[in-house]
Amino acid sequence: MGKEVFEKYESNIRGYCRKWPVELVSAKGSIYKDVNGNEYLDFFDGAGALNYGHNPEYIKAKLIEYLQNDGIVHSLDMYALPKEKFIDYFENKILKPRNLEYKIAFAGPTGTNAVELALKLARKVKGKPDIWAFTGAFHGMTLGALSLTTEQAARDAAGVPLNNTVHIPAPYSMGGNFDTIAYMKEILEDDHSGYGKPSAIIIETVQQEGGIYVFSEQFLQDLRAFCDENDILLICDEIQIGCSRSGTFFSFERANIVPDIVCMSKSIGGYGLPLAITLFKKDLDVFKPGEHNGTFRGCQLSMVSALAALEMTVNEDIPNKVKQKEKMVKEYLEREIKPLLSDNMEIRGIGLTWGIDFKDGKMAREVLDECFKKNLIIELAGREDSVLKIMPSLVIADELLLKGLEIIKKATMKVLKNRK
Amino acid sequence: MGKEVFEKYESNIRGYCRKWPVELVSAKGSIYKDVNGNEYLDFFDGAGALNYGHNPEYIKAKLIEYLQNDGIVHSLDMYALPKEKFIDYFENKILKPRNLEYKIAFAGPTGTNAVELALKLARKVKGKPDIWAFTGAFHGMTLGALSLTTEQAARDAAGVPLNNTVHIPAPYSMGGNFDTIAYMKEILEDDHSGYGKPSAIIIETVQQEGGIYVFSEQFLQDLRAFCDENDILLICDEIQIGCSRSGTFFSFERANIVPDIVCMSKSIGGYGLPLAITLFKKDLDVFKPGEHNGTFRGCQLSMVSALAALEMTVNEDIPNKVKQKEKMVKEYLEREIKPLLSDNMEIRGIGLTWGIDFKDGKMAREVLDECFKKNLIIELAGREDSVLKIMPSLVIADELLLKGLEIIKKATMKVLKNRK
Amino acid sequence: MGKEVFEKYESNIRGYCRKWPVELVSAKGSIYKDVNGNEYLDFFDGAGALNYGHNPEYIKAKLIEYLQNDGIVHSLDMYALPKEKFIDYFENKILKPRNLEYKIAFAGPTGTNAVELALKLARKVKGKPDIWAFTGAFHGMTLGALSLTTEQAARDAAGVPLNNTVHIPAPYSMGGNFDTIAYMKEILEDDHSGYGKPSAIIIETVQQEGGIYVFSEQFLQDLRAFCDENDILLICDEIQIGCSRSGTFFSFERANIVPDIVCMSKSIGGYGLPLAITLFKKDLDVFKPGEHNGTFRGCQLSMVSALAALEMTVNEDIPNKVKQKEKMVKEYLEREIKPLLSDNMEIRGIGLTWGIDFKDGKMAREVLDECFKKNLIIELAGREDSVLKIMPSLVIADELLLKGLEIIKKATMKVLKNRK
Amino acid sequence: MGKEVFEKYESNIRGYCRKWPVELVSAKGSIYKDVNGNEYLDFFDGAGALNYGHNPEYIKAKLIEYLQNDGIVHSLDMYALPKEKFIDYFENKILKPRNLEYKIAFAGPTGTNAVELALKLARKVKGKPDIWAFTGAFHGMTLGALSLTTEQAARDAAGVPLNNTVHIPAPYSMGGNFDTIAYMKEILEDDHSGYGKPSAIIIETVQQEGGIYVFSEQFLQDLRAFCDENDILLICDEIQIGCSRSGTFFSFERANIVPDIVCMSKSIGGYGLPLAITLFKKDLDVFKPGEHNGTFRGCQLSMVSALAALEMTVNEDIPNKVKQKEKMVKEYLEREIKPLLSDNMEIRGIGLTWGIDFKDGKMAREVLDECFKKNLIIELAGREDSVLKIMPSLVIADELLLKGLEIIKKATMKVLKNRK
Repeated sequence: MGKEVFEKYESNIRGYCRKWPVELVSAKGSIYKDVNGNEYLDFFDGAGALNYGHNPEYIKAKLIEYLQNDGIVHSLDMYALPKEKFIDYFENKILKPRNLEYKIAFAGPTGTNAVELALKLARKVKGKPDIWAFTGAFHGMTLGALSLTTEQAARDAAGVPLNNTVHIPAPYSMGGNFDTIAYMKEILEDDHSGYGKPSAIIIETVQQEGGIYVFSEQFLQDLRAFCDENDILLICDEIQIGCSRSGTFFSFERANIVPDIVCMSKSIGGYGLPLAITLFKKDLDVFKPGEHNGTFRGCQLSMVSALAALEMTVNEDIPNKVKQKEKMVKEYLEREIKPLLSDNMEIRGIGLTWGIDFKDGKMAREVLDECFKKNLIIELAGREDSVLKIMPSLVIADELLLKGLEIIKKATMKVLKNRK
Repeated sequence: MGKEVFEKYESNIRGYCRKWPVELVSAKGSIYKDVNGNEYLDFFDGAGALNYGHNPEYIKAKLIEYLQNDGIVHSLDMYALPKEKFIDYFENKILKPRNLEYKIAFAGPTGTNAVELALKLARKVKGKPDIWAFTGAFHGMTLGALSLTTEQAARDAAGVPLNNTVHIPAPYSMGGNFDTIAYMKEILEDDHSGYGKPSAIIIETVQQEGGIYVFSEQFLQDLRAFCDENDILLICDEIQIGCSRSGTFFSFERANIVPDIVCMSKSIGGYGLPLAITLFKKDLDVFKPGEHNGTFRGCQLSMVSALAALEMTVNEDIPNKVKQKEKMVKEYLEREIKPLLSDNMEIRGIGLTWGIDFKDGKMAREVLDECFKKNLIIELAGREDSVLKIMPSLVIADELLLKGLEIIKKATMKVLKNRK
Repeated sequence: MGKEVFEKYESNIRGYCRKWPVELVSAKGSIYKDVNGNEYLDFFDGAGALNYGHNPEYIKAKLIEYLQNDGIVHSLDMYALPKEKFIDYFENKILKPRNLEYKIAFAGPTGTNAVELALKLARKVKGKPDIWAFTGAFHGMTLGALSLTTEQAARDAAGVPLNNTVHIPAPYSMGGNFDTIAYMKEILEDDHSGYGKPSAIIIETVQQEGGIYVFSEQFLQDLRAFCDENDILLICDEIQIGCSRSGTFFSFERANIVPDIVCMSKSIGGYGLPLAITLFKKDLDVFKPGEHNGTFRGCQLSMVSALAALEMTVNEDIPNKVKQKEKMVKEYLEREIKPLLSDNMEIRGIGLTWGIDFKDGKMAREVLDECFKKNLIIELAGREDSVLKIMPSLVIADELLLKGLEIIKKATMKVLKNRK
Repeated sequence: MGKEVFEKYESNIRGYCRKWPVELVSAKGSIYKDVNGNEYLDFFDGAGALNYGHNPEYIKAKLIEYLQNDGIVHSLDMYALPKEKFIDYFENKILKPRNLEYKIAFAGPTGTNAVELALKLARKVKGKPDIWAFTGAFHGMTLGALSLTTEQAARDAAGVPLNNTVHIPAPYSMGGNFDTIAYMKEILEDDHSGYGKPSAIIIETVQQEGGIYVFSEQFLQDLRAFCDENDILLICDEIQIGCSRSGTFFSFERANIVPDIVCMSKSIGGYGLPLAITLFKKDLDVFKPGEHNGTFRGCQLSMVSALAALEMTVNEDIPNKVKQKEKMVKEYLEREIKPLLSDNMEIRGIGLTWGIDFKDGKMAREVLDECFKKNLIIELAGREDSVLKIMPSLVIADELLLKGLEIIKKATMKVLKNRK
């Protein structure tokens, strides 16, 4: 029993358990507890699915109460009360104050479903097979979304060519000064570029898996203008960066732009429960009933936690809290970590997602291992996994945040010292 | 408030709520309750996700206890205790007694993820782009799975050509005597068929969405032999028909065959909670860590309910119960309904999935509407939605089962009488 | 020098020279002459490109005269006199008498170009990506045409999946009684077949590379009706079977049907010179200038020979001559060869294209080798190359025709005797 | 009769005849003659298929003699004497002196066939579906080659998505300073670029249809090195730029590089007769017999003219003549035309292919029309057809060359004056 069960029966495909070979039992806030009673500080946050920390009491109480009352749990896309309340709150307390008018579709329980639905909609509305994504993009693992995802190992696993997508160099390409907008303009206007007009361009305003790259407000505005000028839909994939992670509920708010389609998942479920939604402008709602469906697109337990999470967001003004903690993290990184790094290394981030790019995957892994020895769970991202990805809960206590940062500092010092 | 929220804000894509325009609040066993306190008998079963009925007490208690103890809810593919227990029980109490040796992979929270993972694996192992599926097949809605799904409206919504799949006429094709095995043999052996060898053939042993078509044991055995002879993987999609629905835990048991890959979801989660797994023979486990992933592939709350559901399956011998109820349903349909039907209409089914094929979608819809007037929730399936799909919970009380069947009988009588 | 030049410098891809390792110098009518002065009787006919035999005097004189007068040879799609004359004659002496109203497009110099143009047109007119072809089909070797071609070795050489085509079992499938029309009807009407409506169906009325399978007049008429009823374009690939080979100028004449699109090449050039044309009904002419082009689509030397060949066709009433020779071949095969064959072997054909299907590729090759020993050049076709393909010039002298048939008879006797 | 024949019967797809609505009868050297006896000076050269001018006497005599002697005309890939002589001469007088060791494959009669064969070979050898081409590229019109061709109108006409190709910005992109090599290096090394390694990169060393862009020797050398370092095949498409047009027989000679695969057509046939060949390094010859084929891959008449054209090339040292004429054209353009142009306009070229890029398709067309009024046949190329393409025969008399240039000068003056 114990870990051998996994080693004996679970597929080699299992991944994270190899980095942190502990068996978890419970969790609260930013602390995991394993079978031996050891505690681990969580700077990984379920890859962005636990913005409110593990098992927040406010949501937990709602879930238990709902279960106790035999609230309907599974209902596909029948009408159900928790879904009504979620939609209503989402529209009136999240969208309206931001002057956003979106329809909402429930694509299935996970992010890749939200993206697949968005792609179907974009292609249906605009009639072009191509979708453009950026180098560094991550949009999911099912075949349609995977065509947009850039991670080569994941693409290779498809076993078939991934088509009908074009990958546009992000502005940080080619040494950091690539004029992405000019490039897109050129290949669109050039009648000999080999590329026709796409139905949509999809973007994460902050690439997370790509290595914590924050697209500038100017770039996002130029992208929005480019799409407008060329009758191309703009899709924001908010799956990991949304739900206040960047300091605003939607990450695109900072640039003051309105995407045509928005994909959400991960923390929208609020308690680590599966939920995914796709938002789009009302005039794009050309779907016929059932054109996309899925068994778990109406998990009402997720709707209960999702509503509670939105309430927390509004009542506790979580976006604002993120901005305060952002300051703290940023200052720490610049003051304590930056001086440790070589010139080619970089610190990048916004809100509560930060990366230390060691430009060396082996080194980054050593830092991760050192952190884990000090009971800090933290993940890598980016090119060749060279970026240590700092992504704590949005409601983490300041002491824990600081504690984690200090572990990172020590780990970095140790690894860098060994290198010299 | 109320239903207007959905009409105002939810996408046109919503479907089931149009057939049964009631707003659900709670549910227990086979009974839904709406906002007005009305009760509805459930013969739809969450499209197969609620084999143990709504909110079964045994599972419910486990879930509440787990939440109360702050058990870890979201853990990606880190080691976690509920997952260990689920795997261990699944291997020792489900697979071992059936002499099945499978590895298990957690593909993400929903059926289409399990299929996408299966396709990646099959193509990686065998190196051929093509997968064969059968006419009438339903395997999911994300682009890879959708390529296998036959429903034309769903395919059209893809917006791009769906490739690398071949659809093989099911044995019920061409008037019912199509020799599917001979056909496959021919196109494989014919060096001018236009079709090369596929990596895998995927099948639902009972096509549910296709219209409740039960493939014969002989056919399934011949298919297994065909795959063996030609070095092709056999994938069983047990997503809707598995978990005891057909009278055995795995639906392929009745044919005494062993698929190479098995996709499960829907009722594997046990309480309507999202979970999906892909099983495959140990020597096929060529995956590298992380080649397929997904945020919600480690929802521990689903593992808790999944384990409890397996325990119910074993402790209450649910497969055996299904066989008893199968007898009851079958006799009722043959005795009470069959005589009402025209010659061209058919009754088909196994276990607790039955279809009355009116061979007329409009008529079937009228029967559905009549049933709904009598507070029975029942869905259509099949070609042009001409099949009334009887799919109650596996643990439904006999009285409720009979009650539902009687509503169906009366509705059928009324509709057929009007037609004369 | 000599053959070593080929062995040393030409790619392994060379094929026919391996079956008949002689080096040719000149040719006349049905006789090849090699570097050593040996003569060979030609029952292969340039794979259908030499319907008028080698170097017919009538055409030869026109070509020499044209060259001597410095007639324009290469003109792309500029207006040129030989092209005008060819079009004019083709329209007035070939199409008009058959009540055919077609526009003509010059796709490039070879058959596969004519097919690629046809596919572009069909998809442009009907807007569906899929084209249906039949098992056994051969339509060319460039990627679009290759997707329709069924020969597995050729398909495998593509190196990429061949998509947007469906291969329909020909009526001779499944033991010979496959109801192809019913099958197509079923997959089109079945909303769960996995196949949508194609833009076009392409057919050779007699499959040549597939193994000399003559589609019945009834089948061709039913196919035409099926296309009409379902708004699908019918494309006849006349590349090998057209130009009088079957006993009528267009092979579809015998069934009294009118295809929407017709592809021609091979003998349309008249002297073995490269030419290909695509014909289509006038209302389908939605092309914009230059949407398909090609450097050699206006080879005026080919137009000169093409015109002369048409004149021969009309003046000598070649279709009628073919019918006379067809009788002779048919009688010979039935009287002299048929009795030699086992029960499973078949003789099939029409006009001047006949196959002896030994149902055994090794045996067929032995017969070919025996024929070659007797200076008869004859090729194989069909599944596993098991069909000896009798395809002499349409103007072959009766004595030579008989001589060739006798060589075949003796070769067959010898090979079959050895087998016993 | 006359042009009405074309208007009545030929498809709208016809193109060039719209620019120069004259009906041609004969041609000699650089002069066309129409049905009315008018003469036109040819600066178009059959889109590069007439490098030796129309109907050169040396080749003409060989063709007529060959026809008179009943030389074999059509032989597929059987051994034949003209083919032997062509291969032998090509290997010994063209390849050997350049230290090139290639196998030769006869792909079919036209350029797109040579490219399709090259793609099959590259994918077979390297096993990757992707091929990279450059923006501005033109490689043919059949589906495989078309996927590489960048002209948007041609791509749109495919009617299906064009996949398995990536278009790389040429060095003249983005204002003229795009670092194409660095870009390719980046997307190959970046494990999140979305692009995997291609089997091959295909290039025209001078893009003709793209608008007469001459890639620098340095760039070509860097490209060769890039391919070597990354195990990627380099394919040179010499179809239009080869056969001495650029001043060397192979255009890649000037950069002193050796491609892995070379595609030739157009002027390789020597008299405007269809021929295409693909050359590749001997160790790449992994083809099985017949994996690619085509009816007209063995047109011996084209072999006769092709051999004669090679003899002219060697005996008259045509590459050297081109260099002399290049000087004359270049000086004229710089001295006489350049001063007429606005700052943004450009003159580009090499050997005997030059472009005046007016950066304005309408203006370029007016110049073309003015030239035609003066009986000069000259074509446009490039983005939005804004480039006047000067491409006379390589053996044009100096007086005619000058005459044509003067017509261009006057036409340019007239059009530009009108614009002011």
